[in-house]
Amino acid sequence: MDIKNKSITSRDEDFAQWYTDVCKKAELMDYSDVKGFIIYRPYGYAIWEQIQSYLDKEFKATGHENVYMPMVINESLFKKEKDHISGFAPECLIATIGGGQTLQDRLIIRPTSECVFTEHYKHIINSYRDLPKKYNQWCSVVRWEKTTRPFLRGSEFLWQEGHTMHSTSDEAREETLRMLDIYDKMGEDLLAVPFIKGKKSEKEKFAGAVETYSIEALMHDGKALQSGTSHYFGDGFAKAFGVQYLDKDGKIKNPFQTSWGVSTRLIGSIIMVHGDDNGLVLPPYVAPIQVVIIPIQMQKEGVLDACNTIKQGLEAKGIRVKLDDSDKTPGRKFSEYEMKGVPLRIEVGPRDLVNGVVTICKRNDGFKEQVALDKIVDEANSLLVKIHKEMYDAALKNLSDNVHEAHNLKEMEEILNKGGYAKVMWCGDRACEDKVKEMFNATSRCMPFAQIPIDDKCAICGKEAKYLILFAKAY
Amino acid sequence: MDIKNKSITSRDEDFAQWYTDVCKKAELMDYSDVKGFIIYRPYGYAIWEQIQSYLDKEFKATGHENVYMPMVINESLFKKEKDHISGFAPECLIATIGGGQTLQDRLIIRPTSECVFTEHYKHIINSYRDLPKKYNQWCSVVRWEKTTRPFLRGSEFLWQEGHTMHSTSDEAREETLRMLDIYDKMGEDLLAVPFIKGKKSEKEKFAGAVETYSIEALMHDGKALQSGTSHYFGDGFAKAFGVQYLDKDGKIKNPFQTSWGVSTRLIGSIIMVHGDDNGLVLPPYVAPIQVVIIPIQMQKEGVLDACNTIKQGLEAKGIRVKLDDSDKTPGRKFSEYEMKGVPLRIEVGPRDLVNGVVTICKRNDGFKEQVALDKIVDEANSLLVKIHKEMYDAALKNLSDNVHEAHNLKEMEEILNKGGYAKVMWCGDRACEDKVKEMFNATSRCMPFAQIPIDDKCAICGKEAKYLILFAKAY
Repeated sequence: MDIKNKSITSRDEDFAQWYTDVCKKAELMDYSDVKGFIIYRPYGYAIWEQIQSYLDKEFKATGHENVYMPMVINESLFKKEKDHISGFAPECLIATIGGGQTLQDRLIIRPTSECVFTEHYKHIINSYRDLPKKYNQWCSVVRWEKTTRPFLRGSEFLWQEGHTMHSTSDEAREETLRMLDIYDKMGEDLLAVPFIKGKKSEKEKFAGAVETYSIEALMHDGKALQSGTSHYFGDGFAKAFGVQYLDKDGKIKNPFQTSWGVSTRLIGSIIMVHGDDNGLVLPPYVAPIQVVIIPIQMQKEGVLDACNTIKQGLEAKGIRVKLDDSDKTPGRKFSEYEMKGVPLRIEVGPRDLVNGVVTICKRNDGFKEQVALDKIVDEANSLLVKIHKEMYDAALKNLSDNVHEAHNLKEMEEILNKGGYAKVMWCGDRACEDKVKEMFNATSRCMPFAQIPIDDKCAICGKEAKYLILFAKAY
Repeated sequence: MDIKNKSITSRDEDFAQWYTDVCKKAELMDYSDVKGFIIYRPYGYAIWEQIQSYLDKEFKATGHENVYMPMVINESLFKKEKDHISGFAPECLIATIGGGQTLQDRLIIRPTSECVFTEHYKHIINSYRDLPKKYNQWCSVVRWEKTTRPFLRGSEFLWQEGHTMHSTSDEAREETLRMLDIYDKMGEDLLAVPFIKGKKSEKEKFAGAVETYSIEALMHDGKALQSGTSHYFGDGFAKAFGVQYLDKDGKIKNPFQTSWGVSTRLIGSIIMVHGDDNGLVLPPYVAPIQVVIIPIQMQKEGVLDACNTIKQGLEAKGIRVKLDDSDKTPGRKFSEYEMKGVPLRIEVGPRDLVNGVVTICKRNDGFKEQVALDKIVDEANSLLVKIHKEMYDAALKNLSDNVHEAHNLKEMEEILNKGGYAKVMWCGDRACEDKVKEMFNATSRCMPFAQIPIDDKCAICGKEAKYLILFAKAY
């Protein structure tokens, strides 16, 4: 690791540059020689592993099974659901040569796997006894993007995609919302990121879905980030692919389908919600390293011994800890782990040890205190709990402070230009969404579940309002 | 799940058909609509998850870090190491269209990632302080194969690939052998599959490697299966890619490299080493379900209660257990879980319950006994340990019984036609390997570490012998 210069661009000066600086200098990723295909470096990948570990448990606890589907899809299969192909065609990477020969049926590198799952379900679902089928897969997908940014929009990204089949539409809708709730809870439990949950407009929904739900987060610069989606498909794909089963009543029926996914985009969310001018700030439960121990004058007798004792004590509590006994200066180590957003730093020096204390420092607010050696493990443990709460509360306050009601275009303009969500009534027409996009470069994010009217007219066109909806500039 | 017919082809009648039957009927995989790209169904994928979980712990315990590299490689980058590209070019899948445009530099879907890792290492390795770098990645790779078989040879398969860089060749060689040992230990601990470890000949080594080591297993039909490899690259790739570092002595040097991998081929190994005419037989530690509980006359009072009590008792011991309370007949359930190779079956019926007992049955040998209800959890636990040992011992005996010394072509012919390994002395010439391939359709598998000469002449050409080597027909 080689951070030559601690200083990065300030957040408020140039947020986009700050973001790129953090991604690189915290060693989360690197660029490869293929544009848009990033390298997930160990520290970035370890964050993804924490997210995987949390979600995989939740998925299995709710009866889902992991599978792995082919990464390529025959172009002819991909074309079976018309809305789906028209949505994805422009961004497909296509293989045309295999083993030196031109392929008869061109192969699409999966941008998403509805088609392969549905085709497989056709083969294995025959009777009501075969339902529900609740599969998930961890993999990468490829979408050929013109402009790419690490974690936020990439030509290849890591994700999970759940695909389920149910005998009734009610059960499928319930599944769609259950998975959205699991994502929402992950935000609160693991990422310390509060989300707004809601339903997407027709314009913004997934290609081929009947309904799309999303979790939306608010970044430090006031932009929204769609952080996960859950789709209800009805029986559209099932009909297009011919998935049928014999029900108890002796009738042949089509099952009802869902899909849902979150991706490494969540890492972008963590960076932009919590980061500061010294770099990344990681919430404790998702942090690959929760506590770093840095010896001061480590050649002095007793310093490294004390470090190791503390390390063992923390590990015994299940805390992820790193003792950095490399030959770099303590000052350089301080800035490295600040840049990497390690939640707690423990400094162990000979002078403190004489007094039987060490120094502990919180990354999220810089709070520093001296703690008795025999209390340090308990103190670190409770500080981690405290940090998570503080970070979540701060993010929640920022979110609440930046959702503003608007009743007309002028009010919307003010809010959207300042940053944050404009909460408005909307007639339901796509023309109004297009107008907001054109005027303010903002999009409808979602219709929150609590549909409490704040006006009776559409804030954009003045016609009768149907829905409460949030607009924002977004990544 | 729908096993309509318990009967599968007998192993000794048509081993290839038996294998395919087991893969399909045990619901390990299914075919997709793209030839050679299989679907890893939940039960098959769960076996892979057990392997992942075991290895990932071992990799991390030995200081390796997980990363994720792009799934595509610029063709120009792939061509940097000449031996490597000539080995892989014939089986590449190549993408030529992205976002509707013809790509300037064609993209190879990764068949292996030496090139991308080495290119990345070039960017992040500058000083001796940056060494060693020990990365691993879990992913899928694509190799366009003409003839494919589930798990054994596929156009896409799941694997892990470790790629490491070291400051000295000694350290890199040590790493190469350490990882081979970890694979070998996994065979003994997890798969109950004994391996022969050794070094590959020049002909059989990996494209671009200086030395390749492998673990070789013996299948029921007498064929060998290469089950994992570990490569020492010297500084060949590092030189081709320009990876350099400043050493302590102030000199610029190239680091030394390794790579090593195992794949879902291991699932094929488990099937073909342990399976029998009733289907799969899974060693307990890799089995997704270790104990299945089947209620007999489950409508009778107390039966399901007893099943649930046993289930909770087993789960409390950390045993993976399934209670099948579906409305299928017990007989049908018996054959389903036999097909799936679940190590232990517990039958809980009203008549047994009157006597305070249940029946437990071992999948590997059909042994059946009645056990008192309050002893069943302990008994299941110790039977699982016993089954693993029995399965490993049986596989080891089969391996030992089928390695035979040969001193000339006639003896080799006898052994190779019967099945198993022919252990011979060899002059070291590729011409002799080619001859054995041509005459007996067998290949050199590896040169075992214990090079104890059994002759002074090459068994093939009669010239002076240099190495002890094993030949076998192989998958």
